[in-house]
Amino acid sequence: MLVKHGVISALTRSTSYSLPSSSSSSSVLRRQQFLVRTLCASRTHLPNLIRAMSSTSEADAESVLRTVTPSLDPKRHKGQAGKIAVIGGCREYTGAPYFAAISALKIGADLSHVFCTKDAAPVIKSYSPELIVHPVLEESYTISQLSEEEKRKVQDKVIGEVDKWMERFDCLVIGPGLGRDPFLLECVSKIMLVAKKFNVPFVVDGDGLFLVTNSIDLVKSYPLAVLTPNVNEYKRLVQKVLNCEVDEENAEDQLRSLAKQIGGVTILRKGKTDLISNGEIVKSVSIYGSPRRCGGQGDILSGSVAVFLSWAQQLKSGQVSPSENPSILGCIAASGLLRKAASLAFTKHKRSTLTGDIIECLGESLEDICPAS
Amino acid sequence: MLVKHGVISALTRSTSYSLPSSSSSSSVLRRQQFLVRTLCASRTHLPNLIRAMSSTSEADAESVLRTVTPSLDPKRHKGQAGKIAVIGGCREYTGAPYFAAISALKIGADLSHVFCTKDAAPVIKSYSPELIVHPVLEESYTISQLSEEEKRKVQDKVIGEVDKWMERFDCLVIGPGLGRDPFLLECVSKIMLVAKKFNVPFVVDGDGLFLVTNSIDLVKSYPLAVLTPNVNEYKRLVQKVLNCEVDEENAEDQLRSLAKQIGGVTILRKGKTDLISNGEIVKSVSIYGSPRRCGGQGDILSGSVAVFLSWAQQLKSGQVSPSENPSILGCIAASGLLRKAASLAFTKHKRSTLTGDIIECLGESLEDICPAS
Repeated sequence: MLVKHGVISALTRSTSYSLPSSSSSSSVLRRQQFLVRTLCASRTHLPNLIRAMSSTSEADAESVLRTVTPSLDPKRHKGQAGKIAVIGGCREYTGAPYFAAISALKIGADLSHVFCTKDAAPVIKSYSPELIVHPVLEESYTISQLSEEEKRKVQDKVIGEVDKWMERFDCLVIGPGLGRDPFLLECVSKIMLVAKKFNVPFVVDGDGLFLVTNSIDLVKSYPLAVLTPNVNEYKRLVQKVLNCEVDEENAEDQLRSLAKQIGGVTILRKGKTDLISNGEIVKSVSIYGSPRRCGGQGDILSGSVAVFLSWAQQLKSGQVSPSENPSILGCIAASGLLRKAASLAFTKHKRSTLTGDIIECLGESLEDICPAS
Repeated sequence: MLVKHGVISALTRSTSYSLPSSSSSSSVLRRQQFLVRTLCASRTHLPNLIRAMSSTSEADAESVLRTVTPSLDPKRHKGQAGKIAVIGGCREYTGAPYFAAISALKIGADLSHVFCTKDAAPVIKSYSPELIVHPVLEESYTISQLSEEEKRKVQDKVIGEVDKWMERFDCLVIGPGLGRDPFLLECVSKIMLVAKKFNVPFVVDGDGLFLVTNSIDLVKSYPLAVLTPNVNEYKRLVQKVLNCEVDEENAEDQLRSLAKQIGGVTILRKGKTDLISNGEIVKSVSIYGSPRRCGGQGDILSGSVAVFLSWAQQLKSGQVSPSENPSILGCIAASGLLRKAASLAFTKHKRSTLTGDIIECLGESLEDICPAS
């Protein structure tokens, strides 16, 4: 499965699989290589890719997990297994960004940051000392007395606080617990521009999708963007972008059209079966998970996609075809792992299974598929 | 191993190993004795010491742990097994000081304090009721409206809040989660002066190393200072002090030169193999730990060095040679224990091992090496 969409490119083969060093310049270089590889993978139309596009196929999620997850090498140092940042968390919502950020660590990332509002920060910090939580975002109510000029200064300061960290991150998760405050969302729009400037991939979920659906240009034609809509978020995206209703009869084709219409972003449409497309291929993951639908599972997924997508960039030459799109691989791996962990948690906790219980099963589930040693 | 660098000194032998009483004056006396012993150990050049200096040798960390760790005596009272203070924790970082302070307790210290900013205190307190958290540090943004004179008064107040506690502490850990706010770092510089006035040893890590690298006089020729740089922090120290790049081919010699150049401070250079030097001898610890590089492990180490260094001061006569430098012993013990605990945690949690999991294994790992009873 992993090689059947292969597009062999000397450019990508020769440059893309060196392990990153710790320096920022290497991070930038790595992301540039990733961008080239992603563009090549999604825009080249060799025969085998065209054949693969002709039908949806169930992904072998366990195989993808085994391929994408790096072996643990004692020679590597802090940060090399992934540095993730979640943009989310406001006065109202604090659980969602925590779930996304802690999931990233539990899967194996080295560092997990959260950029949230000042009100949300102490709460998110108190959930776990393992996260690095930056109290930098602002909501309208904290700046309502300011002049327009002063508001612009506040916005510049917010962007600056995120900007100075940006090139260190391997992937962002934008949206968990973000809320819908206009001033905050405007700042987040600018943060997306900064991420694109540095070629940092980002996963958009929750209120981030509300923002993106209303301003589709924020992600249009950025191949390192991954959208992870649920039923309702998907419905709004389809209405807005394709100007029609969701067509369950032709779900795969519609998803592919949607992703293509947004310029080749990757979309993971969550549902009983998860469907994944970048406008070229469509993959499905339908391993049985759990019948519990407690809130927060989408946050686990978004944090997981960020980690696996980052790892997919770092794959060593020879392990997979360079053309295998890291965003697609990241989505397949995250979907498969979440389902397995949810199933395990449900076995243990039944009706009382909560999102935290599923997070506690991420490690065991991953270990079962690809043992650490 | 423990006696081979022995420098027999009547002065140190006759005075240094009495158990401390609870009074402050005894604490002061004990630290003075420690200072004398440390100076003697690092500056005397008897033949056996010179021989020992000629090559790096792998430390027998388990043997050091057994020697340094005190037996638990029901007659001893609160505080005698160690009173540690962490100077760190700001609006942005709260996990790091918590990890350092709780690690000290988990190893066996009696009291663990944290001196942090007002914003950080409630969060750090919420992680654990076991810590004593003082909300006394100030960052620039809280004093930006004050005049220069008022700022100086704030600074004096901050120093005073730490000063009044200082002589009770056996060791400080300066830097975990300190941040880089200029006003805060200026206060911490003054806190270092107070610690030196009372001959209180201190371990410098994280942002404390940023401060020290830019103001090397803060630690220069203070033999009770221990620096614990990681790869990047070490690189900056070498560049600043030795005015050259890191030389991996001659890592031991370069480390010894660096420690000597800073006037005989002890440096624990963290890496795949930890290297420890005080400018005279070089020791290595390379017991296998864990391949996980999640953030926060350095904080465990700094808190652990503080405890073992304190215990090394309290050793009874006859157990070890008086010349065995307590700072070196503390570093060897801490490095060995962290590696053992990380290994144990990894066995249990594999890829999902987090710093908190390693801390939970500190007690079991130490018990395995030197049972409490």
